[in-house]
Amino acid sequence: MQITRASDYAVRVMIYLASLPEGSTVRQSQMSRATEVSGHFLSKVLQQLVRARLIRSQRGSGGGYALAAPAAGVSLLDVVQAMEGPVRLNQCIEEGPSCQRKAWCPAHQVWAEAQAAITNVLGSASMAGLASQAKGMSCQLHDKTVWITGAADGLNAK
Amino acid sequence: MQITRASDYAVRVMIYLASLPEGSTVRQSQMSRATEVSGHFLSKVLQQLVRARLIRSQRGSGGGYALAAPAAGVSLLDVVQAMEGPVRLNQCIEEGPSCQRKAWCPAHQVWAEAQAAITNVLGSASMAGLASQAKGMSCQLHDKTVWITGAADGLNAK
Repeated sequence: MQITRASDYAVRVMIYLASLPEGSTVRQSQMSRATEVSGHFLSKVLQQLVRARLIRSQRGSGGGYALAAPAAGVSLLDVVQAMEGPVRLNQCIEEGPSCQRKAWCPAHQVWAEAQAAITNVLGSASMAGLASQAKGMSCQLHDKTVWITGAADGLNAK
Repeated sequence: MQITRASDYAVRVMIYLASLPEGSTVRQSQMSRATEVSGHFLSKVLQQLVRARLIRSQRGSGGGYALAAPAAGVSLLDVVQAMEGPVRLNQCIEEGPSCQRKAWCPAHQVWAEAQAAITNVLGSASMAGLASQAKGMSCQLHDKTVWITGAADGLNAK
């Protein structure tokens, strides 16, 4: 019952992009430095985020990756689900006849309640809000200013 | 981000045992029928529950498996953690230097909050409470009375 490493990295990518001026595109090499995710794994994460239409890829000079939609409308839950599919704390939570016992199993209701609790927390955290916090935090910790330096290095604001 | 099948089966085992008269021991074959978990997988689940001291194994005639402690004091969270270890929604939630970024990463706090939400829900559901609900539910649904029939078939109340 743990998010995948890919989800964790996708969240880093999304918060980083959300921390930049609107419309910024970032090369993968710069993204790798800012998020501390190595190139090969980062490629896979970026591809998945593009497929989920959370970011867009732009080729050519000045190209890179950019948010596909305003960061305020994208939640932590959206990012996790883009990487892992719908959050289902137990198989029985899926719609349809996923478990014959679910109509009368007392645990089913608890799984559903726990899932609602987690999706509520993750769904309430927007990328814009987290990026705003990240900026404040990295200003306080001058040895961890990767988000801030990223904003001035290797990106193309439009 | 999903509990394992073994955890789901362990919960079935624990609710079933909690639905029986206190001190009852149940043979594995009967447990398999009641929980609808096949023998080989059930063996592994039972072994793990014994190791976690949630149930005890009794050899010989009249032997089988029984709860090791009152069902009111065992939560759904206890059972899941017995099978999977401590719930950690993300690796960064672990104590110690699990992630260098966690001191300033804004997502860390959200993972922690989501984890607290889920452990709160699962920790509040006791095996005794769930077993009580299971009894009521299986009485209402006469074609799903496996928990009830189990109480009269193949167990040894002391």
